[in-house]
Amino acid sequence: MRNIKLIIEYEGTAYSGWQSQNDVIGIQEVIETAIKKTTGEKVKLIGSGRTDAGVHAKGQVANFYTKSSIPGSRMKIPLNINLPDDIKIIESEEVDLDFHSRFSARKKRYRYIIYNGKIPRPLYRNFSYHVTRDLDIDEMRKASKYFVGEKDFKSFMGRGAVVHTTVKKLYSIDIIEKDEFIEIVVEGKSFLKNMIRIIVGTLVFVGIGRIKSKDVEKIIEGRNRSLAGPTAPAHGLFLEKVYYD
Amino acid sequence: MRNIKLIIEYEGTAYSGWQSQNDVIGIQEVIETAIKKTTGEKVKLIGSGRTDAGVHAKGQVANFYTKSSIPGSRMKIPLNINLPDDIKIIESEEVDLDFHSRFSARKKRYRYIIYNGKIPRPLYRNFSYHVTRDLDIDEMRKASKYFVGEKDFKSFMGRGAVVHTTVKKLYSIDIIEKDEFIEIVVEGKSFLKNMIRIIVGTLVFVGIGRIKSKDVEKIIEGRNRSLAGPTAPAHGLFLEKVYYD
Repeated sequence: MRNIKLIIEYEGTAYSGWQSQNDVIGIQEVIETAIKKTTGEKVKLIGSGRTDAGVHAKGQVANFYTKSSIPGSRMKIPLNINLPDDIKIIESEEVDLDFHSRFSARKKRYRYIIYNGKIPRPLYRNFSYHVTRDLDIDEMRKASKYFVGEKDFKSFMGRGAVVHTTVKKLYSIDIIEKDEFIEIVVEGKSFLKNMIRIIVGTLVFVGIGRIKSKDVEKIIEGRNRSLAGPTAPAHGLFLEKVYYD
Repeated sequence: MRNIKLIIEYEGTAYSGWQSQNDVIGIQEVIETAIKKTTGEKVKLIGSGRTDAGVHAKGQVANFYTKSSIPGSRMKIPLNINLPDDIKIIESEEVDLDFHSRFSARKKRYRYIIYNGKIPRPLYRNFSYHVTRDLDIDEMRKASKYFVGEKDFKSFMGRGAVVHTTVKKLYSIDIIEKDEFIEIVVEGKSFLKNMIRIIVGTLVFVGIGRIKSKDVEKIIEGRNRSLAGPTAPAHGLFLEKVYYD
């Protein structure tokens, strides 16, 4: 038995997210089907974490066990032949048997892209969140500082999630302006359901003046979802990189 | 009667190009329908030129005549409400009655994006031409010089076009490297059918060594489509800007 690690890029627009849900197929199942076609085996693909419907990835990581003799570094070639255009394996390699995409992960980096212009832009519609109101970036940067560190993020967890702790560690949030685009880059150990999208929605509320930057501390301390801003749309979010030792 | 000029951005993926063809709707007809919904008038929308199926635009220009009292600068708002997400008016204004999107155009700028990496990239699949073989950019730059100026571009015209002249004036071709992407920016007065895509296909053949850069001069002089390289795919091409006096 060998353990194969995959790095995956996908456009999430057409899928129910990483997991299949109801009648809509998930990215995990699409890749499992491609593995079946490639090795003949029905495997369970272990992802580094779920992504929501519409969220994209430039560097999702997953692994699976196989008896196939295809070398790890070449595995991506037949898999890509069996994958649709919107999901591709950008790297594959054989790893130690105890490597686990989720449990071995040390850090994840997400990027959220806001398009802050008056006019809707067709070419970016599936890859950014269109905010028409002017954003005060300095206030957003001030607010973002409160999220960094080990905090109870209960106010920033999507409803319906069952977890044993809502304490998570955020390493950094950087806000980068590029013409009419604002990119929010978040690094952390792991994240709650919808956590980044709710942080972004809260930062946008700070940017338009509906929440004061200094009130973000109280929102965190309140441990109540209804205190935070809305959940920003999925299609602005990219899982960019998963780090391992 | 008033004359309204529109600047339009679109993703061409879902359309037959600017013009409707067979059973597939074109961008022109989609906008004409939005105008009908907005002003109640059945108008003929005049484009600066056609774009092929799959070609995108960041700055297509079109104009139409209307009796509507909606101010030119505000016209984009109701039009955008009546347009799909992949076609939007980014600017609108009232212009002189003798302004004609095609005949008044002084210059057009197109950008062609090549993704030159080994692995297919889902996020760029509809917005770039994936070339896996290594490209010799210096040779491509040398070859590109032969296209600049007033030339007979008969070797670079798609089959089936009927024109009174195949002589066209190209102002510039710039080749820009950005990581694994190569952008070819072409400026000219006007272009023949498929002309930029055939120029790009020829430059890619130069880049992989199938055509020598110095042979491009002979290919132009030969005035024969079969001498030039293949027609590069539509989805790498963007109509970026149309210039007027």
